[in-house]
Order: sequence, then C-alpha cells, then structure tokens
Amino acid sequence: MVKRIGLMTSGGDCPGLNTAIRAVVKSAINNYGYEVIGFRDGYRGLVENRFVKMKLSDVSGILDKGGTILGTTNRYNPFAVTVDKDGEKTVKDMSDRIVDTLKMHDIDCLVVIGGDATINYANRLIEEKGINVVAIPKTIENDIYGTDMSFGFMTAVNTATYAIDKLHSTAESHHRVMILEVMGRFAGWVALEAGIAGGADVILIPEIPYDINKVARAIFERRNKGKSFSIIVMSAGAKPEGGITEPVNNGNGNGNYTMPYEGTSAFLARELEKLTSLECRITVLGYLQRGGEPSPYDRILATRFGASAVNIINKGEFNRMVCVDHEQINSIPIKEIAGKVRKVPVNSELIQIARYMGVSFGD
Amino acid sequence: MVKRIGLMTSGGDCPGLNTAIRAVVKSAINNYGYEVIGFRDGYRGLVENRFVKMKLSDVSGILDKGGTILGTTNRYNPFAVTVDKDGEKTVKDMSDRIVDTLKMHDIDCLVVIGGDATINYANRLIEEKGINVVAIPKTIENDIYGTDMSFGFMTAVNTATYAIDKLHSTAESHHRVMILEVMGRFAGWVALEAGIAGGADVILIPEIPYDINKVARAIFERRNKGKSFSIIVMSAGAKPEGGITEPVNNGNGNGNYTMPYEGTSAFLARELEKLTSLECRITVLGYLQRGGEPSPYDRILATRFGASAVNIINKGEFNRMVCVDHEQINSIPIKEIAGKVRKVPVNSELIQIARYMGVSFGD
Amino acid sequence: MVKRIGLMTSGGDCPGLNTAIRAVVKSAINNYGYEVIGFRDGYRGLVENRFVKMKLSDVSGILDKGGTILGTTNRYNPFAVTVDKDGEKTVKDMSDRIVDTLKMHDIDCLVVIGGDATINYANRLIEEKGINVVAIPKTIENDIYGTDMSFGFMTAVNTATYAIDKLHSTAESHHRVMILEVMGRFAGWVALEAGIAGGADVILIPEIPYDINKVARAIFERRNKGKSFSIIVMSAGAKPEGGITEPVNNGNGNGNYTMPYEGTSAFLARELEKLTSLECRITVLGYLQRGGEPSPYDRILATRFGASAVNIINKGEFNRMVCVDHEQINSIPIKEIAGKVRKVPVNSELIQIARYMGVSFGD
Amino acid sequence: MVKRIGLMTSGGDCPGLNTAIRAVVKSAINNYGYEVIGFRDGYRGLVENRFVKMKLSDVSGILDKGGTILGTTNRYNPFAVTVDKDGEKTVKDMSDRIVDTLKMHDIDCLVVIGGDATINYANRLIEEKGINVVAIPKTIENDIYGTDMSFGFMTAVNTATYAIDKLHSTAESHHRVMILEVMGRFAGWVALEAGIAGGADVILIPEIPYDINKVARAIFERRNKGKSFSIIVMSAGAKPEGGITEPVNNGNGNGNYTMPYEGTSAFLARELEKLTSLECRITVLGYLQRGGEPSPYDRILATRFGASAVNIINKGEFNRMVCVDHEQINSIPIKEIAGKVRKVPVNSELIQIARYMGVSFGD
Repeated sequence: MVKRIGLMTSGGDCPGLNTAIRAVVKSAINNYGYEVIGFRDGYRGLVENRFVKMKLSDVSGILDKGGTILGTTNRYNPFAVTVDKDGEKTVKDMSDRIVDTLKMHDIDCLVVIGGDATINYANRLIEEKGINVVAIPKTIENDIYGTDMSFGFMTAVNTATYAIDKLHSTAESHHRVMILEVMGRFAGWVALEAGIAGGADVILIPEIPYDINKVARAIFERRNKGKSFSIIVMSAGAKPEGGITEPVNNGNGNGNYTMPYEGTSAFLARELEKLTSLECRITVLGYLQRGGEPSPYDRILATRFGASAVNIINKGEFNRMVCVDHEQINSIPIKEIAGKVRKVPVNSELIQIARYMGVSFGD
Repeated sequence: MVKRIGLMTSGGDCPGLNTAIRAVVKSAINNYGYEVIGFRDGYRGLVENRFVKMKLSDVSGILDKGGTILGTTNRYNPFAVTVDKDGEKTVKDMSDRIVDTLKMHDIDCLVVIGGDATINYANRLIEEKGINVVAIPKTIENDIYGTDMSFGFMTAVNTATYAIDKLHSTAESHHRVMILEVMGRFAGWVALEAGIAGGADVILIPEIPYDINKVARAIFERRNKGKSFSIIVMSAGAKPEGGITEPVNNGNGNGNYTMPYEGTSAFLARELEKLTSLECRITVLGYLQRGGEPSPYDRILATRFGASAVNIINKGEFNRMVCVDHEQINSIPIKEIAGKVRKVPVNSELIQIARYMGVSFGD
Repeated sequence: MVKRIGLMTSGGDCPGLNTAIRAVVKSAINNYGYEVIGFRDGYRGLVENRFVKMKLSDVSGILDKGGTILGTTNRYNPFAVTVDKDGEKTVKDMSDRIVDTLKMHDIDCLVVIGGDATINYANRLIEEKGINVVAIPKTIENDIYGTDMSFGFMTAVNTATYAIDKLHSTAESHHRVMILEVMGRFAGWVALEAGIAGGADVILIPEIPYDINKVARAIFERRNKGKSFSIIVMSAGAKPEGGITEPVNNGNGNGNYTMPYEGTSAFLARELEKLTSLECRITVLGYLQRGGEPSPYDRILATRFGASAVNIINKGEFNRMVCVDHEQINSIPIKEIAGKVRKVPVNSELIQIARYMGVSFGD
Repeated sequence: MVKRIGLMTSGGDCPGLNTAIRAVVKSAINNYGYEVIGFRDGYRGLVENRFVKMKLSDVSGILDKGGTILGTTNRYNPFAVTVDKDGEKTVKDMSDRIVDTLKMHDIDCLVVIGGDATINYANRLIEEKGINVVAIPKTIENDIYGTDMSFGFMTAVNTATYAIDKLHSTAESHHRVMILEVMGRFAGWVALEAGIAGGADVILIPEIPYDINKVARAIFERRNKGKSFSIIVMSAGAKPEGGITEPVNNGNGNGNYTMPYEGTSAFLARELEKLTSLECRITVLGYLQRGGEPSPYDRILATRFGASAVNIINKGEFNRMVCVDHEQINSIPIKEIAGKVRKVPVNSELIQIARYMGVSFGD
C-alpha cells in the first residue's frame, strides 16, 4: 500500500507547473493521507537528494502563479551527467543515485511533471531500475505523444495570439509583412492554433515544408485584393522544402538560443524581401511563451491531471502517464509513448479549417 | 443545389459571434461560391426583412471583436410578437413573414447563431414551416444540449476567473467572505470551471441545492485552519435546499436584471452573515461576462463551427446543429436537442476534482 | 535619531499597498539601517499590539501582488471603538493603547498607508497624542486632498475602462443604453478618466448634479445621428439636481454595499427607461476596482511614495504626507489636508476635453 | 481665420495614434467647424497628394484601436527622397510638393502626429517653406524634447513590465539570468520605468555606460543572499564603458532590425556568461512594444493632446508642439525643441528611487 510519494518538476518552464504541484499535494494529503516528498530542480535534485517534505501550506496561493516552487532543470540527463573532477570532465550515469534517494525516503511512487525528455528518462527508470512512476504531461508545444492536450499549451497559444493582435495594427499601418516565430521544433501546434485565432495569412509549420515562392504568392494575392500587409506565423522548426542550405544558427528553436539567435524566421524574412521587395520584420516570441500565470483553461487541466495522478497511484496503476483522451481524463502506459512525438496531421480538421479561412501553408 | 444562404445572430451578446460570422462568410464565398444574405437583429430582422448582402470586406478585421456586426435581439419570439396598433397591444405569430423573407431572397438554407431559445424557434421553423436551417451554438452558460462546448463560454470562464483573482487579495486583506455571482440559471458550468480555476473555497450551482449550514461550516473549517477569508462562487440560479422562501427579485439571473437586482447572492450573503458574524460582500459579474473580445480558444472554436456549418450545408445535411463531440467537430439533428438543457452531472469528474481540492458544494 | 519605524496599512483594499510596503521596508533597512515593525490590520493592530518585525525576505516577490500582507481594517476608528462586554456594547476611545504600543516598541515614527479616514485619525494622533507620523496616500477614488495622484487610482481607471470596452460591444449589438457605476462618493475622478478613456457618451459625477432630461436628450441626439446605443459612466455619488427623493439604499457607494444594493445607477436606469423607452442595463463594478495586481503606473508611484516617506523620516520631517505635486514627489503637512476632499473642478481641463469629445455631463 | 486643417501620422507605429486622430477630428469639426483633410502614410502622402476628407464617422470606434487609420511611413525624409527613374536612383528634395499639396487643398495649418524625425522635418517646413504646423508628440521611447510625456510610452512600459513579470517565474524556476532588451536608443526611459515596475535587479540605460564587472558583481551579491536568479532590463542603446569593440549588428535598436539581429543584449549575455558561468537568456521585445491597443493612460493623454492641438490652432498659435508641462497641457515652439533629445538625467529622482530599491545600474 502506498504511503509516501515523491514529486518533482523537470524540463523547461511552463505555465501550470505550480497548479499541478498544488493538485498533487492537496489530493495526496487530504484524500489519501499520503506523505509527499518534493525534490528540487528535477532529476538533479533526485540525484543530489535535495528534498522538502511538502505541507498543505506550501501549496497555498500558488494555483495561479507561474514557474515552479520546486525548481526545475532543463537538459539534465541523469543517465549521462557531466561531472567535473579536478578540471577533468567525464560523463557519468547517475541514475542509481535516484534509486538510492527514493529508497532512503521510502517512496512508493514518484510523480514526474515534465515533457518528452522527462518522460523518456522516467521510462528508463521504470524499465532499468524498477522504479514506480506516474507522469503528468506538460509542454508549451503540445507535442507529447499519447495525450490530446498538455497544460501550458493553451497559455502559450494565448500569448502568441495576443502578440499577433499587436503586430496586426503595426503591419497594417506600415504596409509590412510581419513574421512571428513561435515555439515548435517538431510540431506546429502553437503556430497553427495561434495562427487561426489571430487571423494569420500564412502559417508555416514543421510538418509542411514550405515553398518560398508560394509564400510570396500568397502575399501578392493579398496585395492584389487591396490588402497591403500580411501576417506570417511560423514554428521555430518550420523549414523550406529542401531545407536551409546556408549556415543558420538557430539554437534548438526552443527558447534556448545561443547568441546571436539566427532562427528560421530570419532566413524567411531575408528570402521574402528578395522576392517581394516588401519590408519584412521578425519577432521571436521566445521565453514570453514559457512564463507567467497559467490561463484558466490550463489551471483546470493541471488540476485535473494532478488529482488524477494521485487517483491512479491509489489504484496501484503505476508507470502510466495521465492524459486527455477525447476530452476525458485517462491514462496510458509510459512505455507506449516514450520516444514518440505528437505532430500535426497534415490533413487534420484544423489545417483544413485554416485553409477554408484563406490561410496559406506555403505548399 | 445551394446557392444562397441566410445568416443571423440571435439572443444575448456572446464573445465569438463576429468570429463565427466571419468564418461562415469566408467559407461560403471562398470555398463554395455561395451568396450570403445577413439579416439584422436576429429573428426580428427576418420578420421585418432587414438584410444586407455580405461581402468579404464586411468581415475583414472582425475576428477578435466582441459583439455582432449583424446586431441581435434578446427575447424576441417570432411566433408570439407583441404588436402595438393604435395603443392596443396584441400578440401575433409573425413566423410566416420569415418564410416570405427567405423566399423573396431565394435562401436555400438559414444559418442561425444562437442559444437555447434561438434553436427552439429554429426547430419550429423547420417542423412547422419546412425551412432549411443549420444552427451554430453560442452561449455563455454552456448549457446547450448536444454539444460539449459552445463558444463564448471559455471567455466567460476567463472573465469570472480573473474576477476571483481580484477578489482574492481583498478577501485576504480584509478577512472577509467574498461572494461572486456568475451566470448560470439552470446549469452551473461557469461557476464550476471558474471556481476550480480561481481556487474558490465554496462553489454553489443550480444542480446541487445547498445547505446554508454546510456553507457556514466550510467557512468555519477554513478559519480553524488559520484561513481568515473565503471565496464563494455561485451561479445566478443556485438555490438553497427548499428554495428561497422570502420574496426575492432576481431578474432572470441572466444579466437581464430588473432594478434593483436582488439576486441569489444577496440572499446568501444575508443568511451567511447571520450564521457566521463575518463580513460577506457580493459582486455580481453580470454583463461583463458577455462583452469584449473572444479568447483565442473561443476564436478557434467559433471559426471551426462557422466553417463546419457551411460544410454540412454543402453536403445537404440540413436541420442540424454543429457541435463538439469529444473534442471533434460533428453535427446533431436540431429536433433531438430542442427544449433540452445541458446540466452539470452531479457526479461528473469536474465536481469530483473540485471536491479533491477541498471545495465545498454546500451539500 | 530615528532607529525604528512602525508601518501599517489601513482602510479599503487598494492595488499598490504591497508595493508601498516593499518600498518602505527595503528603503528603511537597506539605506538607513532602520528596524521596521509592521502592525496588522491597520489601527486595530496598533490598539491590540499585533505586530511583526519585518525582514527583507518578507517583502520579496510582493511588488506586483494585490492586497496587503499586513492586513487592513475598514471603518475602524481607534477613537471610538465598539467594545462588547458581557453583551453590553459601549463605544470607547482606544487611542491611548496606540501610544502604549508605539512606546513599547520604541517606534520613532509611524508610517501609515491609507486614505481620508486613515489620515484624519493620524492627524488626531499627531495633535492629541504627540505621535510622529508620516502618511502615504492610497485611494481608488483619487480624492485625497494635497496630492495630484494617489496610488490605486490608475489601476481602478484601467479596470473601469476595460469594463466600458466590454460593455461597448454589447450595447452596440443590442441597441441598448449601458450604465456603468464606478467608485466615487464625493469625487468623480474614476468616472471622468475612465469615461474619457473608454469613449463614454455620458459621464455623471457628484460635482455636477445632472438633469435627467438632458441625459435623455444626449441619448436621443445620438440616435438621431444613427447611433442606436449609448454608454453612461457614473460615479456612485452622482445625483440628479434636487437629489433623489424616493428612498434609495445605496450603501456607502464605496463598495461596502448593504444588500440588496440599490445604487444611484438603478435610480437612473429606471428614470431613463421611462423617458426614452430604451432598454437600460446597469453594471456595478464594485470590488473589482479594489483588488488585483497594481498597474505598472501604480507600482512606480507606490515605490516612489514608499521610498520618499523613509527619506523624509530620515530628514526628521515628521507629520507630513508624501504627495505628487505637478508630477514631482513632495510632501505636505498632514494638518493642512485632514478633513478635506479633492474634488473634480467643474471647469477643469479634463471636463473641458470631455465636452470637446461630445460627452454630456447631464448639465 | 482657419477653415481647413491637414492631418497626418508619421514615424514608427505607436499606441494612441488613432486616439489622437479621433480627438483632432472630433474637436475640429464639432467645436470649430473646420474641415479636416487627412493625408496617408505621413510625409509621403503629402508629397504624393494622397488624401481623404475626414468625417466624424471615420473616427467612430477607433479610440482604443492600435495603429493608425491614416497609415504611416517610417524613415521617409521629404527633403531627401530616393527616386528611382529607369533604374537610376537619385536623391531628391520633394518638400515643395508638400507646399503644393497644402496650397491645393487650402490648408491653413497642418497637424503632424509624430516623433523626433517628424518634428525635425516639420521645423524645416516651417522655417524654409513658411508652412503653419502644430505638432503632437508620440513616441515609445519618451525621448521627445520639450514634453514630460508623449503618448505611447506608458503602453510600452506596460508591455515591458508584463514581460518582466513573465520572465520572473522562469528565471526563478531555472536559477537563471534573464535579460530583457527594450526600446531606447538614446534614452533609457522604458528600461528605467519598466525596470522599477517589474522589480528588475539590474537596469542598463544609454545614459549610464555600464561596467560589466559591476553587473556581474550585482548578480553575485544576490546569489550570496540566497537569490539564485536575476532579471536585467536594458535599453537597446545601453553600452558598456568604452563601447562595444567587437563588430555588432544591432540594427538601429528601434525595432527596425536587420537580420540577424545581434543586439546589445546578445553582447551582454555572452560577456556575462563568461564572467559568471550562469545561464543567461535574452528576450528582445521589439515590435510588441509598438502595437496593440493604447492603455487608458495613453488614451486620455492622446485625447488631451488632440483636442489641445485644435485649440491652439483656433487661437492662431502656430508652429508649436503641444506638450505636458508638470502634468498640465501646454505648448512650446517647435524651433526650440527640434534636434534635441530628452534623456534620463543621471541624478533624477527615478534613478535614485531605483537605487534605493537595490537596483544596480552597472556603475
């Protein structure tokens, strides 16, 4: 029988992390009488055994606060940690330390709140170390396989949509092409949904390689109808057919930019100016999509996920990720989803709807 | 084959009406080459044959604007119109005028964007007059039967949640009970979702009659845990067990208040002050839930609904309402839904989740 | 030489209280090495000697949070406290307790953050008890005499303006008169500034008694120009010429409503419906003006006030209120302002500007 | 006597342009019976005689809309226009065309709404061509000489402050240094005011060259106090002492970036990572500061400016710019301000207040 659970948040910042923490803690303590041990800064805190025993008062007032009170670490792989000893760097598998930590605290099940990478490491802990895990999906990009929706995404769609709203008036006043680059390395969900919500004229996503001539044509067609401006929303991972041949430094397109950031939007702007002689201006939304308070939608979703995670622990259903399955909360074995990415189906209804609205995907 | 469609908006104001109008017009003209005749002010404009031929330029730039460019009328029943002739008022069935109007304009199908009442009248026009209708559901209260979601609702949830956020700091600083009354005559969706998103302590909805003593107890229990304030969110239609015995003038609880408005929240505040000796303060959100720009979520939903309505017209599938069915866009025969209300199931997952979070429903 | 200062917040909730607290504490500790003793719940906490020694960590992260971490009490007069002893209520002067409390803690100067009433009590403490006080003005209504601006006001103007923005689309879609009642018992600043910012058609303020016929005429004039709707913004204290003759229960018009609230807007709506036969709908903004996070403008102002209050303490300039004097931070003796109210001059530039924009003041 | 006025907007987009247009048009037509001729796209429209006679209905509903209905042109100098004739580019003085245009339309006075460059060209038109001009100052950067405040600035401060709020939670969760680059080539007003409002730890502005070691020290000092993150807000024109020696392409730092944008923030991030070994992440706010709806503050200010501009025309006071002088609306001769920039005084009260709050300016 479960008595103590572990809890941590891992990966990039995402609106709703605190909401999910609150839901797990309240549900675990109030409904099942579990003890909850929080680990700091994701897997790093598990390796380093940095923990806090969580009380109800710790999660009071955090429902609508951005960030995570537990801290997080991005791109920390517990199976390959860079260790610096006397100036000599070596890569070491520290995953057994996690096993030790969990044993020391008598943790019956570890709740991980994270994205793709977090879930992949969790799968290895399950498979290779026999740890009990329940995962809660969070992601700005909505690309976690096995769930229709992860919290954080709709807040990012809001941020991106309101950015389009702002760019709209400037584009129109200046007769310009305004390009907004949003998150999405492999999946174009943010660009697609914000593009529809913001009334973008062109939406470019990784799933549909674009033809620069067709993008230019879409802009000229608007001009012919008397519209002297255009709005393009593109995923960080959107690429032209054939890829980008010149050297482009685009960081990982996920808000972790090396400097200077030379993203896919810069390439597009340059090519488009050549083809159209119109002023093209870019805005990279970057971190603004990650921070701030979660939208009411995400607060509800994160609360449902958090409470449901504790429910399935109580039923002894370990090694699963809670998910949304056709608007119902459900769960799915982690091993079935690890390593997969949820992309936009190119014939999906949303793509179709966007086309009906006159949006060009550059194809 | 369809060549011309009619379009009107009817019932109370709702964020997303313009978005839906835009989607219908763009889709109808661009994709199918239909002509679109817009009728002003809902059924009244159909009776009085006040129309406008809609062009693409009419719907340019309205995606994110509140209200409806076609105007609307609330509580106008075309089957029972009050006619004033020489000071003598009579009630008359004007529905044949609608038939005449549609015939004069050679309308093959009428698209109605509206709520319960609108859909009920549409059903009578279908059944009694043989009119082709396709309906698009809009409602603040999310109580339209046959669809999981109507546009306007999530924007209202946002408005209500941000109101809770605001009341929170005042409640805490003043050690008070703050009561927020939101829309919902028969269904408690706004109170429930905003209550969860805003972290309300008590949520009162029409589906669960409350026991005033249990509400007071919930507040005292918080006080015993050191929380000197409480937030109550209640639907306009929330009632105590046994109903309200004293005369209460609560308008129709739907933002159409007679003056002075003496709503269900005033009754609760009075009774609660007696039982607890705590200061109870009420805020009636009213019209603020109806106006303003639609949220990105509602813009996407209204766009999907609008485009889908035209799609089913093109397939000759008349007399249906477009709907969300487990997150997929679908449609349902109007006759199956007319006269029904979508209430919160008292054992639904959302109610359960709220209880896990410690929310009292006063039961 | 000053070593320890007291700090409290008093009166109704107001965005920026926490910002001001932070500024006082950071400035006092970091720049002058003072100790800061915070008293809870305004004058009540001073009477009851409920205090906390404030550290820098107490004010970390509160800059943008609504409410006050010190708590507050509304309408608590330390010179006339209702004491309940064995069921017998007596009114007692408890102000000597404040003297005792301050002496016990060795407080050299008390910083009070509050509005009219708070400042009046402070003046009595200065004059009658010889206490050193520095005041920081806060008010939603901007009616504190001696300063051009108090924090909280511009946040309330934002809230009221965005409410007008929301009502606008509904008014236009429904061809209605929408009435928004905002705070302002004696001074019409919120109605005036929000009315200009929101493009109201009629603005009614306490300083200009209105003629109901002239209000109706303004609405008809719009109708004659083809505008089928109107927006009226009114202060809670706006009255018709000759006053309201029928019994009206309007609480104190300041968000402390008895129930049911029957405010000045209800009276106006009823009379206007009689005269115009147009649908008139009211919205009472109430507490939504008091809560929530302060706007950037108010955060800057509250920070300036807080730091300046500590500066003048350091110079030994006691018994003054910090103020804005033609956009410069300054200070003014409390005795010169106690008991006075800052009203809108009826010939002020803002009134004139509003008239140029076509606004009717009902006069 | 004045009968007809011209009106145009020029320079970069700025929230409040439409508000000012509305105020000029309403005031001119309603109060003085002037005719108003609007010219499209700034000075270019004057050169090319592209105009529209403005009616009251043209400015209905634009009060709160971003952008400008008249269009604008950035960096178009009528005294040096690049003309392309048969592939040969020549630079030509087209200012006489403006004289011709104004004469053709019988314009008695031209109202220009714009920033530094716009006002400088206006000054040349006055001095060299004898045109009557009244100017209304607009700028994001608040660097127009001769006025305490221009519209657009406070909206940009809001945008920047809310961006800081968002970055805050990510910085804290990830233990990072987050750098926000805001507008301000020569004057650091946006960085300064948003930095204070957002609680930035370091503010870097053009007026105070920074020492990178002192910036690093400020971050380490926070770390020593247990704060594992820092927020830096910097103007686009902030530079280290001695300037930046390596080649940096920073566009003009004013939202008109060449691609890739390699701004001053990228330089800072790189240097700071070297010195501190902490992760430094940059966000360039760019165009998001220019677009979108004006804040209530800016709506009021733009309305006051617009109405006042017409008032001084009516008094025959030409060749002046309306301004804010210690919170009063006033006006100042254009020739006194042309060519000057309003910088942040390094000993100003705001700088001092920020220092009291513990902010480092890197000096």
